Amino acid sequence: MNYKMTIAYDGTNYNGWQKQGNTRNTIQWIFENIISRMLGEETEVHGSGRTDAGTHAQGQVANFHGRTDMTLSQMKAYINKYLPNDIALLDIEKADERFHSRLNAKRKTYVYRILNSDVSDVFNQRFVYKYEKPLDLEKMKAAAQQLCGEHDFSAFCSNKKYKKSKVRTVYSINIEKTGDEIRLTFTGNGFLYNMVRIMAGTIVECGSGERESSEIPQIIESKTREKAGATLPACGLTLKKVEY
Amino acid sequence: MNYKMTIAYDGTNYNGWQKQGNTRNTIQWIFENIISRMLGEETEVHGSGRTDAGTHAQGQVANFHGRTDMTLSQMKAYINKYLPNDIALLDIEKADERFHSRLNAKRKTYVYRILNSDVSDVFNQRFVYKYEKPLDLEKMKAAAQQLCGEHDFSAFCSNKKYKKSKVRTVYSINIEKTGDEIRLTFTGNGFLYNMVRIMAGTIVECGSGERESSEIPQIIESKTREKAGATLPACGLTLKKVEY
Repeated sequence: MNYKMTIAYDGTNYNGWQKQGNTRNTIQWIFENIISRMLGEETEVHGSGRTDAGTHAQGQVANFHGRTDMTLSQMKAYINKYLPNDIALLDIEKADERFHSRLNAKRKTYVYRILNSDVSDVFNQRFVYKYEKPLDLEKMKAAAQQLCGEHDFSAFCSNKKYKKSKVRTVYSINIEKTGDEIRLTFTGNGFLYNMVRIMAGTIVECGSGERESSEIPQIIESKTREKAGATLPACGLTLKKVEY
Repeated sequence: MNYKMTIAYDGTNYNGWQKQGNTRNTIQWIFENIISRMLGEETEVHGSGRTDAGTHAQGQVANFHGRTDMTLSQMKAYINKYLPNDIALLDIEKADERFHSRLNAKRKTYVYRILNSDVSDVFNQRFVYKYEKPLDLEKMKAAAQQLCGEHDFSAFCSNKKYKKSKVRTVYSINIEKTGDEIRLTFTGNGFLYNMVRIMAGTIVECGSGERESSEIPQIIESKTREKAGATLPACGLTLKKVEY
């Protein structure tokens, strides 16, 4: 049987989703450990994609194959019982045998949260990037508009060794301000390594007046990482949902 | 000049408000350090009351006396600049010379947050107490009702050495459920050491069926700490506001 899970985490204390060598401090490793124990055999858990160290998730999706007599709600209770408090299994359901959380993902939505204030929001400080200088929301929206669409996003990718196509489609980038918090919501068919954080950095540099949104087509065209804006800190980023 | 501050903090990493000997890891110590540097002289900061280690605040109030040429907004920016991200100065204003944040406090409101689920709320896990067994909200409300009013709350105080009057008035205890979270909001003219956490523990034990709300008058009457419920963990408690 193939099981599809929806997972949330506060990523502050983890080295991201994906296990790397001996690093036990990843979300994937923690799930594999618990599920292997639950099923009595080594089980691999496939995530919809890696999230960076320090990045959070409201709706990460992962799947695994295995046999058990447990009901779904027993499995959910078992897994949550062994998860630390900053990781939660929100849902588990049976999926088609051929379902693969990464290969079948159609759309992903990430949120980048900016606290535009010199006063901390102490109850959300782990989930926002604090940026003190004034930001012009209209300029940020203009920049976001320039980034939408199908492009080769090489200039917005930190991984120079990545050899496959860097063409992705960004369906929408919504920018909303509530109180002192500005939320950038990115939806696309997939995102390259650090791509959301670099897009967010470029949008912020347009909002602060450091650069103009009209430069963005040239930045995309250049396919050169150095032309785009800074990679904003991982703490502000949350994987909101994955659609299939 | 006497300055009144409104302060918020995520108390997870601190030993509470009040400085104790050499413990630098208290909110009071941190404010005194920054304000003394700002004013160029040793300055004492008076809080409205101590909060326990691990307890949070949305609206702690504190005051200090000092002289400066800085405007209020300059002072606010200076202090926030040196505060860590889990502490914020929300407001600073000039107060009457005789104002004292502890002695003049008329009403305090605390919130105790219970996550009644076996699934963590990963974005709020630092601010809630996770309690997995079912809770009957009506029974909790009945228990809360019994605790309201003017009583000698000796049975709800952890500090046996406290020699002053333990008579306090609890004006209201509101209990509301949103999703899986139950919020207990306590308003009173003052609270003894651990009193809110012990009242919350007693209310929870009524909600779980471990005891009956009808026992509460006898518990109060007994003036014996051992008769009341458990002291719930500090992490669920937030000082919401102090009124003058």
